Amino acid sequence: MQSSYSEVDPELLGLISQIKLIVFDFDGVFTDNTVIVSEDGKESVRCWRGDGLGIKRLSELQLQTFVLSTEANQVVAKRCEKLKLRCFSNCADKLVVVKQEIINMKLSLSEVSYVGNDINDKDCLEVVGLPIVVQDAHLDVLPLGRYRTEKPGGYGAVREVCDLFFKAHQIKAL
Amino acid sequence: MQSSYSEVDPELLGLISQIKLIVFDFDGVFTDNTVIVSEDGKESVRCWRGDGLGIKRLSELQLQTFVLSTEANQVVAKRCEKLKLRCFSNCADKLVVVKQEIINMKLSLSEVSYVGNDINDKDCLEVVGLPIVVQDAHLDVLPLGRYRTEKPGGYGAVREVCDLFFKAHQIKAL
Amino acid sequence: MQSSYSEVDPELLGLISQIKLIVFDFDGVFTDNTVIVSEDGKESVRCWRGDGLGIKRLSELQLQTFVLSTEANQVVAKRCEKLKLRCFSNCADKLVVVKQEIINMKLSLSEVSYVGNDINDKDCLEVVGLPIVVQDAHLDVLPLGRYRTEKPGGYGAVREVCDLFFKAHQIKAL
Amino acid sequence: MQSSYSEVDPELLGLISQIKLIVFDFDGVFTDNTVIVSEDGKESVRCWRGDGLGIKRLSELQLQTFVLSTEANQVVAKRCEKLKLRCFSNCADKLVVVKQEIINMKLSLSEVSYVGNDINDKDCLEVVGLPIVVQDAHLDVLPLGRYRTEKPGGYGAVREVCDLFFKAHQIKAL
Repeated sequence: MQSSYSEVDPELLGLISQIKLIVFDFDGVFTDNTVIVSEDGKESVRCWRGDGLGIKRLSELQLQTFVLSTEANQVVAKRCEKLKLRCFSNCADKLVVVKQEIINMKLSLSEVSYVGNDINDKDCLEVVGLPIVVQDAHLDVLPLGRYRTEKPGGYGAVREVCDLFFKAHQIKAL
Repeated sequence: MQSSYSEVDPELLGLISQIKLIVFDFDGVFTDNTVIVSEDGKESVRCWRGDGLGIKRLSELQLQTFVLSTEANQVVAKRCEKLKLRCFSNCADKLVVVKQEIINMKLSLSEVSYVGNDINDKDCLEVVGLPIVVQDAHLDVLPLGRYRTEKPGGYGAVREVCDLFFKAHQIKAL
Repeated sequence: MQSSYSEVDPELLGLISQIKLIVFDFDGVFTDNTVIVSEDGKESVRCWRGDGLGIKRLSELQLQTFVLSTEANQVVAKRCEKLKLRCFSNCADKLVVVKQEIINMKLSLSEVSYVGNDINDKDCLEVVGLPIVVQDAHLDVLPLGRYRTEKPGGYGAVREVCDLFFKAHQIKAL
Repeated sequence: MQSSYSEVDPELLGLISQIKLIVFDFDGVFTDNTVIVSEDGKESVRCWRGDGLGIKRLSELQLQTFVLSTEANQVVAKRCEKLKLRCFSNCADKLVVVKQEIINMKLSLSEVSYVGNDINDKDCLEVVGLPIVVQDAHLDVLPLGRYRTEKPGGYGAVREVCDLFFKAHQIKAL
């Protein structure tokens, strides 16, 4: 069952209020899933400026965040540095990292939200409390999302997730 | 109440004729709100070639302009240099700068038009004489625009604003 | 009066058969009219790979070609070098260059086709034998095109013009 | 006759089961057919991150693959290096290379699938066992495809082909 941003149904609000950690995949979530390759073999990715404002507002809430990527290229780290986000790249098995980190943070999987777009996010999406998929996620993972962003990856999807949490916390605070 | 370019309703013409200064946000207005990040951490943005012709025609009118950005990266300054536009970047509070500048220019807020796309443009959009939002502005600022561009940011939005002022001044001159 | 590629009406075929020179604008025709600006102020543009095959086939016909741009940045020359096209950049008045060149080539304006997208192409589009505008040309020049490409600039517009001439010459040769 | 991914009709399944080698064109298949040209004349292309996961799964099957490009720029080789794909670039006549390679591999043309997007892929598409065209292939080659991808080149077309083969082999294995 999926819901979209404009509604923010009560059940989703309840789920959000239990989340203590948001884990983001990188490519296809922070980016439009393209990579620009130069003739020197250097890679660049295309990100959304508006994510910065969202991440900044998120940091005002009592929420942990980190970014988790299979990709080895340091472009992941460079973008996360700018957004002041912790980052694990070159990560062969994402669920292993998530499980290790929540032990360190003394959290349970039900307190985790995971934002992904492809089959290497499947294991994580299947076990966390609030699985989120981007609008243009791979067909094989779309059904795993409890929430599907209206915006595609790299075009406001991260910002939308941040706004969703921010507004849910505002409603809760009323 | 919003109107679009094709109309140029009389009330909007009246507003335009009072404007002495146009202030532009940068990301999402001059750009499509994406940022290209290289593996070296260098940033690039994607702008609209046609903005140059618009800005050039605008400079023939008796109008002041400047660009105002929260972003610290010098890519803002580089683009403005090319377009021969004054530029304030790394700007924490945009309204403070606008207010200071109009004192220097001996203008009132009602003589200012502001073009923005996101929540850090909110304070400025709320107080100026002619608030303009781009087609793909954030939902939270869309209602603040007296005029909403037909073209998205980075795909002709700035050019459209320039054309709007240019044509309004031509009508006025008749 | 405009026609599109799929038709190739007899009148357009007649016009094409008289053309000896095709002049192309650069930005918005060979590119999608965006410019990528890096934090070092370096510029890049986005072109269409398929244009190469079109230009190559065009060179098999008895047709002259050159590229004409207002833009001073050498990115124009670099792209034209790759496509083996003559190129005039940093060109303040395009019609002056066209008129000078056709004197050198011993051609008349009726033997020229011009492909453009913006108001600085207006003078040329108004006087040549076959004015062509790209799908996403500026509203102020769209009506000047005798032919409007189905593909937007930078996404096959140049290739479409090349294919149009190539196929028209094939029909003529029958 | 064409079919699309969602169906995977039995006849297509039969064809896929005979394929031992998949040959991919590069520009317009791995990329969106645009090239980013810098003012230094350096070229970059825009690829799809998700292709990596598809290519990786493909390598688990008993299938040979290589990439074949007319383009001389080394950006082709750089992308293929990352994806661990064999690559022939600067290739004047693609069919000559395909024919030579299948002799080396002791294969027949009916055991080859070719994925292309433009007229320089025509010769290959016409003779292989399973010709595939991308969604946004040139009009002149679209009819040559036995299968047409739902995704455009550079936006998941390669991944879709990989998924198609992967799933067909899974069905076969049942």
